[in-house]
Amino acid sequence: MSATDPAKAAPSLDGILETALYVDDLDIAKTFYADVIGFAEIFSDIRMASFSVGDDRVLLLFKRGASAQAVEAPGGGMIPPHDGSGPIHIAFAIADRDFPAWETYFDRHGIEIEGRTDWPHGGHSVYFRDPDGHLLEFASRRLWSKK
Amino acid sequence: MSATDPAKAAPSLDGILETALYVDDLDIAKTFYADVIGFAEIFSDIRMASFSVGDDRVLLLFKRGASAQAVEAPGGGMIPPHDGSGPIHIAFAIADRDFPAWETYFDRHGIEIEGRTDWPHGGHSVYFRDPDGHLLEFASRRLWSKK
Repeated sequence: MSATDPAKAAPSLDGILETALYVDDLDIAKTFYADVIGFAEIFSDIRMASFSVGDDRVLLLFKRGASAQAVEAPGGGMIPPHDGSGPIHIAFAIADRDFPAWETYFDRHGIEIEGRTDWPHGGHSVYFRDPDGHLLEFASRRLWSKK
Repeated sequence: MSATDPAKAAPSLDGILETALYVDDLDIAKTFYADVIGFAEIFSDIRMASFSVGDDRVLLLFKRGASAQAVEAPGGGMIPPHDGSGPIHIAFAIADRDFPAWETYFDRHGIEIEGRTDWPHGGHSVYFRDPDGHLLEFASRRLWSKK
């Protein structure tokens, strides 16, 4: 299973398509991600909502408990069960030049900055909470780069 | 807060930078994501690990409970607390032509396919579990596209 053995290397993969958060009230969470964060809604029903976050990538919001049993997929087949609790973490990439505009914008929307960090390779982050207490981070895209 | 009011529109944002999973045993999870899925490790310590998933995007693995208190960031500042439980869901994008190679690869690694779905706009998905029971999906990238 060594990644150095080309005969056993994994086929190719194109990154993370969907990132999921589990929420208590879908309407409240949808309003936050659409109207405050500014994501475009793709789809929603009583179980979930999906938002475009750019470049074909998608943020999923699931009502807690509503996917804890297998669910029939709209095109056929079954989606196996999943669910989550606790305040999890996701980070969004922003350009360094956009931090001041976001901080002004957060202030106008009554969003409190809970923490700020700087990073060894450059870049920085600000942290805040969504309506379910999930820890959101706005971070310099180059945060993890060693270039 | 209407997205249609340009004076109040959100500043720009460049998608999801970090997606996080919470795991019971970091070493077991790291082995799975590095050796089976094939992600390159960027960083790891006793609290967490990070993997490059392409295009500057990062998968974070956190040992459950280890980030439930604020943590000092290596470049300065504090990362606020977060933690999660339950089998959450994330999806990875793969090209349609790579599904057969992945299924062969999964079979060789003893990974069981738990479900399969087809989607109204085309594309399909296969579902399987990571060592912590998180529901992973390999999906056609065009899954959410209405084009």
